[in-house]
Amino acid sequence: MSWQPNRRSDTTLQQQIVQWITANVERGDWAAGTKLPTQRQLAMQFDVNRSTVQQALEELRAMGILEAKVGSGVYVTHNSWHALIQQTQPNWQTYIETSIHKPNYHTIQLINEYEQRDGIIRLGTGELAPNLLPIKEIEASLQELSFEPKALGYSSPQGNDQLRAAICEYVQKRGITAEPQNVCIVSGALQALQLIAVGLLEQGSIVFQDPTSYLNSVHPFQSVGMQMISIDRNEQLAQTLTQRKRKKQAVFYAIPTLHNPTGHVWTAREKEQLYEACQASRIPIIEDDIYHELLFEETSPPIKAMDSSGQVLYIGSVSKTLSPGLRIGWLIGPTTVIKRLADIKMQTDYGSSAISQEIVWHWLQSGKYEKHLLHLRQQLQERADFVEQLLQKTFKDIASWNKPKGGFYIWLKFHQSIVDKAFFIKLLQQRVLLNPGYIYNPQDHHHIRLSYAYASYEELQNGLKILYECAVEEVVR
Amino acid sequence: MSWQPNRRSDTTLQQQIVQWITANVERGDWAAGTKLPTQRQLAMQFDVNRSTVQQALEELRAMGILEAKVGSGVYVTHNSWHALIQQTQPNWQTYIETSIHKPNYHTIQLINEYEQRDGIIRLGTGELAPNLLPIKEIEASLQELSFEPKALGYSSPQGNDQLRAAICEYVQKRGITAEPQNVCIVSGALQALQLIAVGLLEQGSIVFQDPTSYLNSVHPFQSVGMQMISIDRNEQLAQTLTQRKRKKQAVFYAIPTLHNPTGHVWTAREKEQLYEACQASRIPIIEDDIYHELLFEETSPPIKAMDSSGQVLYIGSVSKTLSPGLRIGWLIGPTTVIKRLADIKMQTDYGSSAISQEIVWHWLQSGKYEKHLLHLRQQLQERADFVEQLLQKTFKDIASWNKPKGGFYIWLKFHQSIVDKAFFIKLLQQRVLLNPGYIYNPQDHHHIRLSYAYASYEELQNGLKILYECAVEEVVR
Repeated sequence: MSWQPNRRSDTTLQQQIVQWITANVERGDWAAGTKLPTQRQLAMQFDVNRSTVQQALEELRAMGILEAKVGSGVYVTHNSWHALIQQTQPNWQTYIETSIHKPNYHTIQLINEYEQRDGIIRLGTGELAPNLLPIKEIEASLQELSFEPKALGYSSPQGNDQLRAAICEYVQKRGITAEPQNVCIVSGALQALQLIAVGLLEQGSIVFQDPTSYLNSVHPFQSVGMQMISIDRNEQLAQTLTQRKRKKQAVFYAIPTLHNPTGHVWTAREKEQLYEACQASRIPIIEDDIYHELLFEETSPPIKAMDSSGQVLYIGSVSKTLSPGLRIGWLIGPTTVIKRLADIKMQTDYGSSAISQEIVWHWLQSGKYEKHLLHLRQQLQERADFVEQLLQKTFKDIASWNKPKGGFYIWLKFHQSIVDKAFFIKLLQQRVLLNPGYIYNPQDHHHIRLSYAYASYEELQNGLKILYECAVEEVVR
Repeated sequence: MSWQPNRRSDTTLQQQIVQWITANVERGDWAAGTKLPTQRQLAMQFDVNRSTVQQALEELRAMGILEAKVGSGVYVTHNSWHALIQQTQPNWQTYIETSIHKPNYHTIQLINEYEQRDGIIRLGTGELAPNLLPIKEIEASLQELSFEPKALGYSSPQGNDQLRAAICEYVQKRGITAEPQNVCIVSGALQALQLIAVGLLEQGSIVFQDPTSYLNSVHPFQSVGMQMISIDRNEQLAQTLTQRKRKKQAVFYAIPTLHNPTGHVWTAREKEQLYEACQASRIPIIEDDIYHELLFEETSPPIKAMDSSGQVLYIGSVSKTLSPGLRIGWLIGPTTVIKRLADIKMQTDYGSSAISQEIVWHWLQSGKYEKHLLHLRQQLQERADFVEQLLQKTFKDIASWNKPKGGFYIWLKFHQSIVDKAFFIKLLQQRVLLNPGYIYNPQDHHHIRLSYAYASYEELQNGLKILYECAVEEVVR
């Protein structure tokens, strides 16, 4: 959508716009049912007066290419004027609407889209700031790598052997015993969830989770027909699980260390309770442990460390620590399970990027990774302190929060219920992008996930100022 | 499975084996229902006498850990002796068996497994030989790359902007007009199919294909409930499609250029016929064009080049030309469709490897890619000639084939119906791995997909000799 009319052309601006839109529809780029941007947005994009856009759209409406729906906007018509298009183009909109996979929530689509734009203050992003990524060091390590020819071929189903061995050594420090045959390399933690969803669960299975959960913001399980059940963990957990599971297959999804989005760190007792309850009810646990390297202070070992019977599927990744662009994570579990998931991975993408795998192996085995983590934690701690000071100064009267124990996030709770989509959009209009709590818990209109990991110090300061002003307006109302 | 007993230990070999197997079961690596390798295989792996294995297994059977089923083999018991395992381990085997995704055919699992082993002659592999991959040049280009910090963050939904622009320029030479918003970067062509399966088709939709099809050897559509229908293309195609489609949604999957596995190259007329028939019945076409760079002689433009109405989803990739290890391909289609599929890709793996994307961009825009292709085609032509000469010399009396027009494969047809799983296994026992025709068409027991792209000249010679001897034995019988 970067086209603009040519002001030096003989054709009028209005005619150029008409022709451009017609071409988009003819080519099938704008399928029947596509909603057009608003007149204001189009005028901005084309850099023309709004009246020019209005007249062009009116002409297209008269031609039968567009139609206006009251209070809703302008759409590409279904009964289009152009016989050719009418008869030949597949009805893509119907294809899309009836297909299997859930779309992202509109809020998340907007987040994905605006994260790519310049001049946006990203206050919610689950990603390291560019200056926290070890770019120079990664570039340098590329020069140290030399590839076995076989390493650039298709990967073995479970991934690079050396990398799997290095991961076993690495997780050993966290108290986890694994052999390379227990490891499957994945293209990020989300792919691990996807593989579990289609490779281990029958349709209609139950996925237990905390009421506020990362899994509400993505749909690997929902999209293939699993049922999500939120559970308040407590002393009667085993009983609750057994009751609510009924005769179905089930799995418990947990982020016990630096939970996303709340930042919560479970106690050793909480981990034991979940492990024992799931053991009693024979429910496997998915332990998502991708943030543990970012703990400001050591904590108790992960659940996987107490797993003597292959009950826990453990997920790690370098996306939050080294670079999300590498797309490398790992899944550790019993070989029966790992073999099965690797077999599906081969049917999904024939393995993860060989070069990314080599880089991660190089960083793990050379000790560069752990050295980098030392530095990174320090930087994150400074950022966390900075944001907390700002919050202390300004937000105390309208919101509360816990001191972050690591990772990226402060789970900021406004005293009043003000965080709805309108609030999200209002901030977006002021070029501040944040992750509202309702994408993690649809009932929640109190929280936002505030990330101190991405924006610059200056942006954090300005962004929080804008956030405060917007919030106060809501509160006063 | 690389463990061997320690001969210097005080514990007997038999006891070490018993302990090792027990530990595997206890840890949950070998779930209830897991089938053990044969005694012969175990003896080879452990490097002990078969009688030692036999006694160890007998002991484990007496303990109730293993059970023998007559004529079938030895399994980990369900009612295991170990109360702990019994009560606590999730029943992984049941999880796996009832889950959604189809496993690979056993033959393909064996292919995936044996492709990773040393000393195997790979006569069927759809992959460039290590010495045909431009390893040194890729290493050199890594040193030329420098990354924008943002480039190592999460990707935009459709992938690297520069790469998408370079792809538009590249496909223009093949007669395809596309803008960057028409392109979605994928982690290989197979992922493109996966995204289409879950993002564009409702359950029960029909996927039309040629009777012998790559899609029979992988399951992106079948695993989410689509119905595969094989079609003989002929003059009544439009009518046939409409009839067999009934009221359902449908899509036509085609590889018109250097078809996998047959190597067939469609004429311009055949492409037109499909396009017109699908237009008349409003069925989108998936055009898989990942082999076109490997044509020995120019051919007519792809179907996508005649697509004026956004009817064709076009797939390209560098896996067959530059390196499968990069895991980079692309999907070109109407923006409505591309946006939808990019949204699902974000929910699947948050984008493809940033480093791989940079490398492919670098190779495309610098002209290195096309220069490499010149050299590659020549090498493949020489390999094809070499194999054809060998076939001419030996196979004429028992098989027939067409002269390859490019790519990797000769679709070798034995006069007699000898290519079954026993034949595949027999060759495997002689360390020759090939792709039998039945994985592409279950009714076909005449063909094998012979690849001249992977094995060395010496291996090709030896492998074909072994193949000939095995085939002649079958024919004589």
